[in-house]
Amino acid sequence: MNQGKPNSVVEVMALIDTGVETSPSVSMAIEAAVGCVLAEDVFADADQPAFDRSAVDGFAVAVGSTAGAYAIAGEILPGDSAPQTPAAGLALRVSTGSAVPAASAIAMIEDAEVSGVHVTLKSAPEAAFVRRRGSSTRAGARLLAKGSRIGAGEMAVLASVGTATVRVVPRPRVLHVTTGREIVPFNEPLVSGKIRDTNGPLIHALLHTSDAQPLPRCHVDEHAESLVGAVTRSDVFDLLLVSGGSSAGLHDHTPQALETLGFSILSRKVNSRPGRPLIVARRGRQWAFGLPGNPVSHFAAFNVFVIRALDRLAGRPMPPSVSARLGADLPGVTGPYETLWPARLEIHAACITAFPLPWLDSGDLKALIGVNALIRLAANARPSSGENVEVVLCRAGFPFA
Amino acid sequence: MNQGKPNSVVEVMALIDTGVETSPSVSMAIEAAVGCVLAEDVFADADQPAFDRSAVDGFAVAVGSTAGAYAIAGEILPGDSAPQTPAAGLALRVSTGSAVPAASAIAMIEDAEVSGVHVTLKSAPEAAFVRRRGSSTRAGARLLAKGSRIGAGEMAVLASVGTATVRVVPRPRVLHVTTGREIVPFNEPLVSGKIRDTNGPLIHALLHTSDAQPLPRCHVDEHAESLVGAVTRSDVFDLLLVSGGSSAGLHDHTPQALETLGFSILSRKVNSRPGRPLIVARRGRQWAFGLPGNPVSHFAAFNVFVIRALDRLAGRPMPPSVSARLGADLPGVTGPYETLWPARLEIHAACITAFPLPWLDSGDLKALIGVNALIRLAANARPSSGENVEVVLCRAGFPFA
Repeated sequence: MNQGKPNSVVEVMALIDTGVETSPSVSMAIEAAVGCVLAEDVFADADQPAFDRSAVDGFAVAVGSTAGAYAIAGEILPGDSAPQTPAAGLALRVSTGSAVPAASAIAMIEDAEVSGVHVTLKSAPEAAFVRRRGSSTRAGARLLAKGSRIGAGEMAVLASVGTATVRVVPRPRVLHVTTGREIVPFNEPLVSGKIRDTNGPLIHALLHTSDAQPLPRCHVDEHAESLVGAVTRSDVFDLLLVSGGSSAGLHDHTPQALETLGFSILSRKVNSRPGRPLIVARRGRQWAFGLPGNPVSHFAAFNVFVIRALDRLAGRPMPPSVSARLGADLPGVTGPYETLWPARLEIHAACITAFPLPWLDSGDLKALIGVNALIRLAANARPSSGENVEVVLCRAGFPFA
Repeated sequence: MNQGKPNSVVEVMALIDTGVETSPSVSMAIEAAVGCVLAEDVFADADQPAFDRSAVDGFAVAVGSTAGAYAIAGEILPGDSAPQTPAAGLALRVSTGSAVPAASAIAMIEDAEVSGVHVTLKSAPEAAFVRRRGSSTRAGARLLAKGSRIGAGEMAVLASVGTATVRVVPRPRVLHVTTGREIVPFNEPLVSGKIRDTNGPLIHALLHTSDAQPLPRCHVDEHAESLVGAVTRSDVFDLLLVSGGSSAGLHDHTPQALETLGFSILSRKVNSRPGRPLIVARRGRQWAFGLPGNPVSHFAAFNVFVIRALDRLAGRPMPPSVSARLGADLPGVTGPYETLWPARLEIHAACITAFPLPWLDSGDLKALIGVNALIRLAANARPSSGENVEVVLCRAGFPFA
């Protein structure tokens, strides 16, 4: 029943890395674009700061003034425009952020003693307390490069130059279809022979932490035409995930349905455990994964392959290849295939340690409790505690949970 | 103008760690609770698997059967309930997940040759291909412990036991009020002396990646009564963040407003750069932070202090203390205070390297581009490239961006 030789994990990764195209950019309000990748450079619209401003609370006097007594001639509130430079012997009260005259020096409030309308400056006022117009950035300078991901700092930079909407790569739209007549929704009564849907909630949680845009999930029985109908009705996705039916069994109709839908199947199997009967297919810019029905296979296939496709679609850099020190011997054996072993990473003294989790088989949901990484093991590998191993980080975990 | 000695970073952390209480639990649909912490243990409602099921596609025969020819007596589809054990000489076609009779052994499809209504099993059928009822979990076993965070694996476990709603610690509700008459919304025209609001979008992005629930943001001028009014109108928060007005200047009314609102001020200053004029206050279960107006101070105070309060409110474990190898000399100097230096972490060969970013002052937004950590430096510290330093991980970045 085998149809073609299984691809290696690296071959399937390469298929994704070279084939999946970044989605066309869209315009979005900046606050809606957290986590998105910029599709344009962002430039300073003006000098930053836009005017000479005080870096401290204190008193502004004319440049060259010395310590001594001054008459308080007024106050510059933050938000006021700058007045004339104070005449000799006069001081203007200023706050952090107040616009100050160009020829100012400033004494900090901590070095000033106020008595009625006079102030005694105990040390020489300093021009260094003035943040000069353009000292941070000149008008026209490029602040953010196309391809940057919008984190908190980038968001603040966008706001600082008055950007209301920005061109970004949109979040990938993902359609998830679960299949199989043995599956019932997790919140409905079970009947004999059936099992609850765990892959729906699993993928929901994975998409939630992957900066994707999930479309409403649907469930169909195991017939190819049901799957074809469901996908046709929701045809606005960038990525299609089909749970189950990806093996070569009599009732595994995912490949046939994908072909009916016009997808080309690029890979039918990957030589890994879990996750062997993984299907990768494409139709123009749209990609599809047929995920083997077991939950551990789902988890592994998502974190090793699906996330790469999401990253490519979203214009994000590929996740870094990371190694870790194995914190314990493997609690089981590997075989003549690459193994993706559920693990928990911890950081100790600047080094990353991977603790392999107990794991029975690809139906063993308990192996996913507390998982935050997968250890990539070559065929028949048997690394010992203390050796370095390659790990795939699972987005929603390490190093925070 | 100093009011009390500044607290150390560790003292302010301890104030939060010992004072902030976990929010009362609520009941939530499981798919809404991604990232939340369980407020109850979760038990298996039934044996898992709930029935003997096939782990492979193949043929089920009576236990003790050998390789050889069998008549195909029928098929057990996934979702059907299990029939009687096949009589000697008969085989039932099964798929992965099909319920099988208790006294079955199974031959894989790869080891079977089908010819019409007969099948030749080329190797002895194995009982090991039956996943036995309860082999993964027994009914009543505790699967998830109170205090666990709901990631993808925990979500699948919840679904597997038929949990529709679950008791969790809710996401902290955060009210953010920006203050200052010099501030204009980032998407409105600037006039002389004013500056654009960058702290609003900055905090928005930080909350977005912190599993918090932001309430609608508002802006008030610098008067204490304006702040009191805004907070009174949105009094359903767990955490209040006030941007600006936290110094000891004439127009810094945040402390006064917080006291009018019934908050006790627990700390007025922290001996760090950036972030010195940080206010920490509480009113029963509600906490408030007065954040110094500059954006780098905001970023640092959020990632070092505010996130700890959010973690405590949400029942999450405190973030791990992490060290990293300094990848370059500091591009500047430290002073007689703890420094929180913006940095970018990378992973090389299982070790974490921190590259300090160029940084002028706490108004220097450019220091936040690409930042994913802060290096904690003791007063007057001057570590060299290659030394280990303590870092605070900033949630939205490392190791993925």
